[in-house]
Amino acid sequence: MSLITLTTDFGTKDHFVGAVKGAIYSELPDAKIVDITHHISPFNITETAYILKNAYKSFPEKTIHIIGVDSELSKTNKHIALELDNHYFICPDNGLISMIASEIKPTKIVEINIHNHIESSFPVLDVFVQVASHIARGGSLNVIGKEINSYKNIVEIQPKINQDQTVIIGGVIYIDNYGNVITNINKKLFNTIGKGRDFTITASRYTFNKVYNRYNEIVDYSAKDNNQFDGEKLAIFNSAGFLEIAIYRSNLDTVGGASNLLGLEYRSTITIEFKTVITPEFTTIN
Amino acid sequence: MSLITLTTDFGTKDHFVGAVKGAIYSELPDAKIVDITHHISPFNITETAYILKNAYKSFPEKTIHIIGVDSELSKTNKHIALELDNHYFICPDNGLISMIASEIKPTKIVEINIHNHIESSFPVLDVFVQVASHIARGGSLNVIGKEINSYKNIVEIQPKINQDQTVIIGGVIYIDNYGNVITNINKKLFNTIGKGRDFTITASRYTFNKVYNRYNEIVDYSAKDNNQFDGEKLAIFNSAGFLEIAIYRSNLDTVGGASNLLGLEYRSTITIEFKTVITPEFTTIN
Amino acid sequence: MSLITLTTDFGTKDHFVGAVKGAIYSELPDAKIVDITHHISPFNITETAYILKNAYKSFPEKTIHIIGVDSELSKTNKHIALELDNHYFICPDNGLISMIASEIKPTKIVEINIHNHIESSFPVLDVFVQVASHIARGGSLNVIGKEINSYKNIVEIQPKINQDQTVIIGGVIYIDNYGNVITNINKKLFNTIGKGRDFTITASRYTFNKVYNRYNEIVDYSAKDNNQFDGEKLAIFNSAGFLEIAIYRSNLDTVGGASNLLGLEYRSTITIEFKTVITPEFTTIN
Repeated sequence: MSLITLTTDFGTKDHFVGAVKGAIYSELPDAKIVDITHHISPFNITETAYILKNAYKSFPEKTIHIIGVDSELSKTNKHIALELDNHYFICPDNGLISMIASEIKPTKIVEINIHNHIESSFPVLDVFVQVASHIARGGSLNVIGKEINSYKNIVEIQPKINQDQTVIIGGVIYIDNYGNVITNINKKLFNTIGKGRDFTITASRYTFNKVYNRYNEIVDYSAKDNNQFDGEKLAIFNSAGFLEIAIYRSNLDTVGGASNLLGLEYRSTITIEFKTVITPEFTTIN
Repeated sequence: MSLITLTTDFGTKDHFVGAVKGAIYSELPDAKIVDITHHISPFNITETAYILKNAYKSFPEKTIHIIGVDSELSKTNKHIALELDNHYFICPDNGLISMIASEIKPTKIVEINIHNHIESSFPVLDVFVQVASHIARGGSLNVIGKEINSYKNIVEIQPKINQDQTVIIGGVIYIDNYGNVITNINKKLFNTIGKGRDFTITASRYTFNKVYNRYNEIVDYSAKDNNQFDGEKLAIFNSAGFLEIAIYRSNLDTVGGASNLLGLEYRSTITIEFKTVITPEFTTIN
Repeated sequence: MSLITLTTDFGTKDHFVGAVKGAIYSELPDAKIVDITHHISPFNITETAYILKNAYKSFPEKTIHIIGVDSELSKTNKHIALELDNHYFICPDNGLISMIASEIKPTKIVEINIHNHIESSFPVLDVFVQVASHIARGGSLNVIGKEINSYKNIVEIQPKINQDQTVIIGGVIYIDNYGNVITNINKKLFNTIGKGRDFTITASRYTFNKVYNRYNEIVDYSAKDNNQFDGEKLAIFNSAGFLEIAIYRSNLDTVGGASNLLGLEYRSTITIEFKTVITPEFTTIN
């Protein structure tokens, strides 16, 4: 039994997803197929990387992940298959892997070369499914491609830190289903630079002096009406470990979410300023 | 083999659903996972109850239903697992169960207490999947929680009946994919109060004197053009047994549905007035 | 193990899809269920045919396809089950099959007659699932219906060709997830009529003199900035073999797609004019 996931920008109306699943079951009747998402914004590699990074780790080792975003073969957009963190990925070499592999390096990468006998305008169906089936049957990557040592490197905009290590300047990398705004600043960086100092986070014209770990930490349960906290803005380290600007119990269909309420969008700047610790003039000697 | 369903407000773009499925397959390689929906309006318990009530009964007994709507753990929002109607439910104790269990009572409820060693801002992934896996392996509810005898009670607005039993005042509880408007008045109540009397249903500024059992009962097949009935409004007992105000063959993308065409929305009032039967002054004695 | 696909206009929010899957698993615990789509525009048979035609062929033989679009039973809308191209289809006799079976004829068709003991306003759940289960268990079509020899014929608007065979007038039959506009003109017709002659395709107020086979064929990789081609319009034979008017790397959420940018919608006219080859006055005799 093989587990195969799909992450695409195909949407769920067209025939594309159904056709790909049919082709997988034709090759591997016992496969289990999981949709990670088909709602990537068309051609958006940053979104793909964010979603895939946070989803793949929950899957068992040896899961095969097919990525169909910006996957048309061209001189500058080769197809690759690779092993990384004991998972398999089949995708275009469009920079995506460099964002997923920022911490863990692939142990093997091949440039897929079974195209010689496949001319296709739908490579996920015609090529990626073949590659996935080959891997699922225990085949070696070397049979379906030429081993390579590098992949296209697109460094997602990284947070910047000033020389004094008092300021982190980050950016919005993703807006989620609730309209919450996710930045590229993770908890580890925040703690490393912040070292427990007081801080002010500035996002658009709003400021935050605390980062929560759960949304409902902002609720004062001694208050008469717990619902009075609905719609309040907060900063939180989300379940993926990133600093997020959120609206407590937001609803995009009614009041809106952090993105539109606070005027924050993809690539908006978020600044964290840590208080300079004034060294006292005289210190007590013990 | 275990059957596990998911009902959430996660949407299908973010990594949440994929991550949860990956975690289930990591625990239970043979599980079958069914999405009931991931498009609950954020935090909307009434919608969740309506959808889940109408979906769970089609599943085989012993199916495990995970509900991820408003599931963040707090002092006032405990996590529970229960057996009801020979199905298992894992959900927050936010009133949802009281709406599902309005007719059938749970046979056992536990307050989940495996959180002591799990600090989580994503409890569906970190807690509910563990609980589901435990149940799927045949484990007892008592191992993962403390048995309790009550759950939070939120009574969904019930239809009101006047003293004379001539009027039912109900409300809109759900608007479906076709824009049709579903009320909290079910066929049983309608028949019990109505006793076959003539009636007038008033919804917004429209009235109906008949309730159909199938949409196309309004079509007169002797008419030259059957399409002339498209767009007509009607009252119907829908497949879930509730009184519904519908537009025949509505299309939200073009002409719209009952909701916007008739100006009916969530919580709008629907009134049914039954004709007072005039007792004849003289009755025949047989 | 049986493979069952679902193609409906139910949407993915309501309980309909979940209920149908639960009912299938209740009958066939080992079934594999694949969603082709649940986002057909309500009651749209043309869309259903386009999507299903392009999806079903990827599935293994003997796959059972349930179609829940405009499926309410009526005098003029019977339910049928059929075998076509070694696949099974269960659907209303609303013209859909005539569009799918334009090239390959069904080998057996029955009019389902198990309704006598099922009164239903949700026939996909109450009838189609029963029929699918019967077929999946190896049952004969004749047991669940009366064999018939014809089905409702709705000929999707076909391209028109002038007498001189110099002009093809086609129409838009589908708009895909990227906003690309798909016509009813396929590659085979284009080549048969065109015979390699030069041509001008006119769509709205735009013209095209070339049809590509892959989207990125329009990119000049010697250009400094490959992104300069984003947003360019092109004509292409898509992966389903149809002439499509596309925007290279379109994004409906931002710049838009071919449909709105070029003002093309469902049923818009597309004209191809082939150059009349002038017969030279004198030909060389060899």
